[in-house]
Amino acid sequence: MRRAGAVSPGNVPVCYYGPGGRVPASLERRVRAAEVLLRCAACGLAVLAAALLGADRQTRVFFSIQKVARYTDMQSLVLLVIANGMAACYSLIQCARCLVSIIRGGVLLSRPLAWAIFSCDQVMAYIVISAVAAAMEAALIGKYGQPEFQWMKTCHLYKRFCAQAGGAVACAIAASANMVGVALLSTFNLFRLYGSGKGGAGDK
Amino acid sequence: MRRAGAVSPGNVPVCYYGPGGRVPASLERRVRAAEVLLRCAACGLAVLAAALLGADRQTRVFFSIQKVARYTDMQSLVLLVIANGMAACYSLIQCARCLVSIIRGGVLLSRPLAWAIFSCDQVMAYIVISAVAAAMEAALIGKYGQPEFQWMKTCHLYKRFCAQAGGAVACAIAASANMVGVALLSTFNLFRLYGSGKGGAGDK
Repeated sequence: MRRAGAVSPGNVPVCYYGPGGRVPASLERRVRAAEVLLRCAACGLAVLAAALLGADRQTRVFFSIQKVARYTDMQSLVLLVIANGMAACYSLIQCARCLVSIIRGGVLLSRPLAWAIFSCDQVMAYIVISAVAAAMEAALIGKYGQPEFQWMKTCHLYKRFCAQAGGAVACAIAASANMVGVALLSTFNLFRLYGSGKGGAGDK
Repeated sequence: MRRAGAVSPGNVPVCYYGPGGRVPASLERRVRAAEVLLRCAACGLAVLAAALLGADRQTRVFFSIQKVARYTDMQSLVLLVIANGMAACYSLIQCARCLVSIIRGGVLLSRPLAWAIFSCDQVMAYIVISAVAAAMEAALIGKYGQPEFQWMKTCHLYKRFCAQAGGAVACAIAASANMVGVALLSTFNLFRLYGSGKGGAGDK
């Protein structure tokens, strides 16, 4: 599926070009490896975040009344679990597609498919980032309270619950960073199918 | 600055190509017009959101104690004002650059400049989206409360304050949608400088 770069000068190392055009084969390989790694990492981290939140509960007794803290007590944490579950499933499917593409030795040249992947990646990145931001806001209120509105801090009452939720939010932040990286890569994979690669002449 | 598309077949309407390569001049014009419009709209909406929040205050008297609700009472609203202020300034500068570029009749061909604009647009879009998500979470707690943590709803006490803050959040959501659109356009402007435009052959 690859052909030697006919336009490369003879006195530079031989450069292979994929069917995608002016992208050297070495860059093509690195882009694919990075995509698989980022998608796998995003999947793993999103699963970990969702699992940590799903299993997070702490029971305390206050004046003979038993109270249980769960992630379902806070809407933003429920949203974070849903967003991470979606991100994990999506990343797994995309990871499988990338691996099949690598095994078959092909290159993404279909504009409709590249547009579909690009759109889904963008949407997923923004969903995960939004869910993380909302969860962080709720976590900060839980940690420090909001005295002006009489919203008391609760983390000193449920220390273990809050620590585990904090770990889950940290995993979700790492997963969202990977999703953003993936979104950038799929953007590159889409828009290199357009244009002539003649850039570099300055902003005229 | 423009040349006739020498590669276009004779039996299709004459197509002009800008120096950027395989992008028809009509598409180039539409992309530029869309970029200016989106950036202007983002700037206006971000200013409006920040102004609405900045001017938002309501005084109530509870049992002879006077209480004033301001946006500074909630960290996420302060963050939203800062993020929208940054977005407005940035959009204004970028809008001016776009207009100068249109007046001078040039096309963005510099890869370093395209990378810089792309990076800034991406970062701004994610910052504004995150700030909006955090503010929405706080606004929802203010509106409906979080009974499991004894976080009371406060919007029934400060109705006018909450209504104005809601309007500001709506403006910020619209501004962030524009910022996302701008980020997509600058992505297109960057990556069309790469690749050969030979897409369309399927995922081989």
